[in-house]
Amino acid sequence: MAQQERALQTRRQLVEAAASVFAERGYDGASTGEILTRAGFTRGAMYHHFASKEAIAQEVVAAQIEALRPPRTSVRLQAAIDITLTYARLLQTSDVLRAAVRLTVEETSFSQSRTAPYQWALDVIENVLREADAGGELLPGTPIPDLAQLVVGSFTGIQLLSNLVSGREDLLHRVSVMWNVLLPGIAVPGVLRRLDTHEERGHLLSGTQGDADDV
Amino acid sequence: MAQQERALQTRRQLVEAAASVFAERGYDGASTGEILTRAGFTRGAMYHHFASKEAIAQEVVAAQIEALRPPRTSVRLQAAIDITLTYARLLQTSDVLRAAVRLTVEETSFSQSRTAPYQWALDVIENVLREADAGGELLPGTPIPDLAQLVVGSFTGIQLLSNLVSGREDLLHRVSVMWNVLLPGIAVPGVLRRLDTHEERGHLLSGTQGDADDV
Repeated sequence: MAQQERALQTRRQLVEAAASVFAERGYDGASTGEILTRAGFTRGAMYHHFASKEAIAQEVVAAQIEALRPPRTSVRLQAAIDITLTYARLLQTSDVLRAAVRLTVEETSFSQSRTAPYQWALDVIENVLREADAGGELLPGTPIPDLAQLVVGSFTGIQLLSNLVSGREDLLHRVSVMWNVLLPGIAVPGVLRRLDTHEERGHLLSGTQGDADDV
Repeated sequence: MAQQERALQTRRQLVEAAASVFAERGYDGASTGEILTRAGFTRGAMYHHFASKEAIAQEVVAAQIEALRPPRTSVRLQAAIDITLTYARLLQTSDVLRAAVRLTVEETSFSQSRTAPYQWALDVIENVLREADAGGELLPGTPIPDLAQLVVGSFTGIQLLSNLVSGREDLLHRVSVMWNVLLPGIAVPGVLRRLDTHEERGHLLSGTQGDADDV
């Protein structure tokens, strides 16, 4: 294994170990010692890659960008639905994303702006909604920035409640309900009929990088 | 002032001082010392009323029950809207409610079940939706428990995002948008036209105990 490859692997192991501690204990409750024990590295190895616990947390939080890639469906409202279903499925399976969301939701001594991850999500959703609007998919007068804020805000609270009640086991179902209730208020009837909001779609999508079952 | 009245006042002052510290620093960041300084009481006075910081936090959290009283509107979907607008307005004005929500949203060493406050809100909203259904206000097939979970989950995330972006200044607007988008998917057309989702209603309602402008 080349040196660079080894370095990347070490870095990833540190991020994953840190994420599992952040997801469990929050930022302030996570000690560097526990992260090192879980990763199986020395303090020196860590400082070679990250200047501080804060620096690892920043890398964990940035994982949310990767999870927000809009799929290439021709109906753009389907892309908006698919982003949330894929994200929900990833939250069920990825410690790194779970930790990223916890670091974003809670107020702690972690000093990175907590608005940045919301802004990433808002930008992606708002952009897809603008494409949907340009394609005539939205009812006239749909307020796009407000709607993007609603989708991101609702998703945030829905995953929080799902985590508390079921450890996010019912999250895909809740996201499916969200769209079933939202869509009649925003989609033109011809598009509404073609949209797939089934929770099973989340499993399909996460297995295929978000481009399954184009509608 | 009678002795009982004085005791109640001391208790309230302690709860309010604690709430302002919890709202600012979260449960783990709030020290008993800072609460006492802010309340202007001695440690002995506090322990006369509350066994621990945890006991005060429980009283703060319970304030959410008081904020969830359904108003007596004849259209029950309006009652659901009004609960959320009133709650939103109270979040803008009450340290105790702000602290209660923070204690509920974040995972800390505070050991009270965090699901209880959600369950209070779910029960109140689900009950009002059942009344709306009995009155023929909902579209056939509206899934009532799922819808209650959606409203409570969405509200939770919306207030969180609003807090982060504007210190909850735009919260009434965001709640108004939520209902404008949700209602076409759940209300029969005749009722839909009569519902008032304007953010100004939140100001009216909070000034009059939630029974203004019956529809």
